[in-house]
Amino acid sequence: MNRLLQCLLAVFFCSPAIAAEPLPSWNDSPSRKAIVDFVERVANQDSPDHVAASQRIATFDNDGTLWSEQPVYFQLSFAIDRVKSMASENPQWISTEPFKSAIAGDIQGVMASGKEGLVQIFAASHANMTADEFSDSVRHWLETAKHPQTGKRYHEMVYQPMLELLEYLRENDFKTFIVSGGGVDFMRVFAEQTYGIPPEQVVGSSVAAKFEMVEGVPTIVKLAQNPFVDDKEGKPVAIYQHIGRRPLLAGGNSDGDLQMLQYTTIPRDQADTTPRLGLIVHHTDAEREWAYDRESHIGKLNEAWSQANQRGWVVVDMKRDWKQIHPVRK
Amino acid sequence: MNRLLQCLLAVFFCSPAIAAEPLPSWNDSPSRKAIVDFVERVANQDSPDHVAASQRIATFDNDGTLWSEQPVYFQLSFAIDRVKSMASENPQWISTEPFKSAIAGDIQGVMASGKEGLVQIFAASHANMTADEFSDSVRHWLETAKHPQTGKRYHEMVYQPMLELLEYLRENDFKTFIVSGGGVDFMRVFAEQTYGIPPEQVVGSSVAAKFEMVEGVPTIVKLAQNPFVDDKEGKPVAIYQHIGRRPLLAGGNSDGDLQMLQYTTIPRDQADTTPRLGLIVHHTDAEREWAYDRESHIGKLNEAWSQANQRGWVVVDMKRDWKQIHPVRK
Ligand SMILES: [Ca+2]
Ligand SMILES: [Ca+2]
Repeated sequence: MNRLLQCLLAVFFCSPAIAAEPLPSWNDSPSRKAIVDFVERVANQDSPDHVAASQRIATFDNDGTLWSEQPVYFQLSFAIDRVKSMASENPQWISTEPFKSAIAGDIQGVMASGKEGLVQIFAASHANMTADEFSDSVRHWLETAKHPQTGKRYHEMVYQPMLELLEYLRENDFKTFIVSGGGVDFMRVFAEQTYGIPPEQVVGSSVAAKFEMVEGVPTIVKLAQNPFVDDKEGKPVAIYQHIGRRPLLAGGNSDGDLQMLQYTTIPRDQADTTPRLGLIVHHTDAEREWAYDRESHIGKLNEAWSQANQRGWVVVDMKRDWKQIHPVRK
Repeated sequence: MNRLLQCLLAVFFCSPAIAAEPLPSWNDSPSRKAIVDFVERVANQDSPDHVAASQRIATFDNDGTLWSEQPVYFQLSFAIDRVKSMASENPQWISTEPFKSAIAGDIQGVMASGKEGLVQIFAASHANMTADEFSDSVRHWLETAKHPQTGKRYHEMVYQPMLELLEYLRENDFKTFIVSGGGVDFMRVFAEQTYGIPPEQVVGSSVAAKFEMVEGVPTIVKLAQNPFVDDKEGKPVAIYQHIGRRPLLAGGNSDGDLQMLQYTTIPRDQADTTPRLGLIVHHTDAEREWAYDRESHIGKLNEAWSQANQRGWVVVDMKRDWKQIHPVRK
């Protein structure tokens, strides 16, 4: 079949792939060295710590780890924009909170409506519609919406060094997954094109769905039921349920990733000597991005940071370790 | 890295791979021809119906499609054997149904306890234990238990022609998944070694799980809560939730696969002209395996069979189409 072509292409591309230095947007720091050392240690055939390719599972949080998350989670911006665009079909919203604030673009007002208000905003923008309607709305939003402070498209606010890390891991036969508190259906719209991570390797928060034949057409409908929150203890559970094996490497940026980092890196017993890597992206760059950690309302990094030293997790200092934050627009 | 080695190996193995005829255990029948024609149509670079490799998703039911399912689903045999082995720790079972029947190896007695009885058997053998305890128990069972009629190990009762189909699809850059009513944690124990399907590509029925640190060790515990049944309407929902895109090919053997076959093959609108293949394994071989369909309690094939002609699904006749059923023991 195409195998011959594949072989020829593989040979053709061999030399440049060997020559290229990995992680070009990373400074030559201890963080970079720890990552490269780890990957070589598990991937090199001759290493005493070599790990079979099938076991090379890497899981990454998304918000604050692969893309920015300030001033609010991007998915909340989507939800609010979506409510705005649905306002004309829902005239009652104009006088009812939290919709009133959402339509006015008043994020503080939406936040003031508390958890219940947020649930209403998410239900209105994420459920009781077909899967196709939802993904179309996300796609449209990504193509049109701009971040209020940078003016960039939201999917342009991914981290260039993390894109390189994903690619470097895949070159070394890692299978890369997203395991994020973000909505799985939301992330799947852009994860393949943006991160090179196909839909089936995106794990996230979800709501129930149902199947029905609508005028002879098979249809999936998203329901406002049985929410699963892929955060904190939910992350190792989701990894178990969806991936079915323990990662070799996990990366996050907040206390929401604590249990995933523990699940990944803590040895199960004395015999469990396979090397594992935990990685925390620390937001330290107020100039090029944002700086926040222990006291932040979004992406709070406190307990996980405190455990990092004891657990041997690599804490990436964005300001010090990264030459570049977001990709340069072509 | 290993890329150079990969290239050399790829070149080395090129010629034999091209030369080998696919599906050697399949007779040269219309079913085989339909499969090969379809795969060439979507995989050949020059075909007008060429489909990008990333879209080549194939989903297969397990019981009755990839391995046998008579006289009872193999997972029920596991559950009953498991109850037996736990009987000494649960002395009250000896006088209580359905456990009494299970311990006596009386499957009819267990079945007579109805759905409630089965739920008790499954809860006792599948929940309230750690994930590792459960997978160890499945592994032990596979290594020791024998099918009551064939005397084979259960995982030896897979279908050789389907193993070849999985392999043929993967050679053509399909990503192969199991989407089965069987328990996901049960199937994952053997799916990689038996079918070449890694845990993350196994989708099945499940129960809730929780994460906890037990004496400093990260632990997943299976709970007898929130069962998800990956059957009938549950299959397209599970495909949506877990895989996140529509398969190009789906294979099943019973009415439990009807909605998966519909979801996979029915065009969404006029513009939806991508070729899709639906495949039904029809159990027609009472001599080499079992023969059953419209009236069977296990693997009932009625409505899906009735729709096959109209929908263009390939109905594989095991007796006529397969040279061999189970692999020859080495
Ligand atoms: Ca995060
Ligand atoms: Ca079946």
